[in-house]
Amino acid sequence: MKVYGDLQSGNCLKVKLLLSFLNIEHEWIHVNILDGETKTDEFLTKNPNGKIPAVELDDGRYLCESNALLGYFSENTAFLPTDTYTKAKVYEWLFFEQYSHEPFIAVARFIQKYLGLPKERAAEYHALQAGGNKALQIMESQLSKTQFLVGNEMTIADISLYAYSHVADEGGFDLSRYPAIQHWCQRIQATPGYVGMA
Amino acid sequence: MKVYGDLQSGNCLKVKLLLSFLNIEHEWIHVNILDGETKTDEFLTKNPNGKIPAVELDDGRYLCESNALLGYFSENTAFLPTDTYTKAKVYEWLFFEQYSHEPFIAVARFIQKYLGLPKERAAEYHALQAGGNKALQIMESQLSKTQFLVGNEMTIADISLYAYSHVADEGGFDLSRYPAIQHWCQRIQATPGYVGMA
Repeated sequence: MKVYGDLQSGNCLKVKLLLSFLNIEHEWIHVNILDGETKTDEFLTKNPNGKIPAVELDDGRYLCESNALLGYFSENTAFLPTDTYTKAKVYEWLFFEQYSHEPFIAVARFIQKYLGLPKERAAEYHALQAGGNKALQIMESQLSKTQFLVGNEMTIADISLYAYSHVADEGGFDLSRYPAIQHWCQRIQATPGYVGMA
Repeated sequence: MKVYGDLQSGNCLKVKLLLSFLNIEHEWIHVNILDGETKTDEFLTKNPNGKIPAVELDDGRYLCESNALLGYFSENTAFLPTDTYTKAKVYEWLFFEQYSHEPFIAVARFIQKYLGLPKERAAEYHALQAGGNKALQIMESQLSKTQFLVGNEMTIADISLYAYSHVADEGGFDLSRYPAIQHWCQRIQATPGYVGMA
């Protein structure tokens, strides 16, 4: 199995983390976004949407979208509950991540860390802070009640939300305001098989 | 069961469509976004993220995020494949919808249809067109090969993408450029139980 990705990308780290927790062998192929490597004709045959991560399974089929990959690899493992309602709560967090969390926190981080916060994107960067803090506040509220986002066991919801939350400071977010998130990050980092950004 | 939503919202229509196709009884409670009804203290107990749709199940538990709701209600029905890879392809489209489709097409439609395309949002509106057309082109490409987004049977991927695609013209997108999407919309509209926007 081949995973195309960049370990500095939270969306890619999600897949790396789950595969590592589950001890699933794979070849990691580094893809450079800034060099346009996701926009080549060859890469677009892997993912027509031109995004990483993209996974080539052993039978040659492809699968993309970080959170769909988490669902795929966690099937029949402890990371995906089997109870229909609890599983739906996991997916509720995964969709929250892609709509209400990543577009604020990951984009602010991209502008600051990858682009060096250029003047022409400063207004956009500052506008992203409110949405990112709202998402972190919703997580903080849940993590003040339970050890993980859906109850007291780690699921793919935690892996997904962890990816950009633990580096939110690189996008200008002050994590010291979110003690429950900080403790949750420590719990994830203490899990056997944990890997960080390269 | 109570569903809180607005049938002019594609995210809410998704839930209405699936419940109607599956003939699941429910009470629909209209929520007015523009009047701030999703931001009241009472509504935030239903969904801390202040968004519709939100569902109150018969046992009083809540579930939110339109695509997580589709997953919940389609479990053990023909709308959600059981094969792990095929199911993951369905979720790939659901995450594509929330990240690469809705933020362009639904937001452009909101600016045009709900707000009347005010001058101060015209630049944003025009900037959304490229992303929306890219998403429609990816769908068109798939729908030129298969009757539905994941093979030749309708799944929740189709219900999810249909919601804002079929009214994309209300956001300035010219659907006559996408004949495969138009035929797919007709197939969905001809399905027993189909309901449109109110």
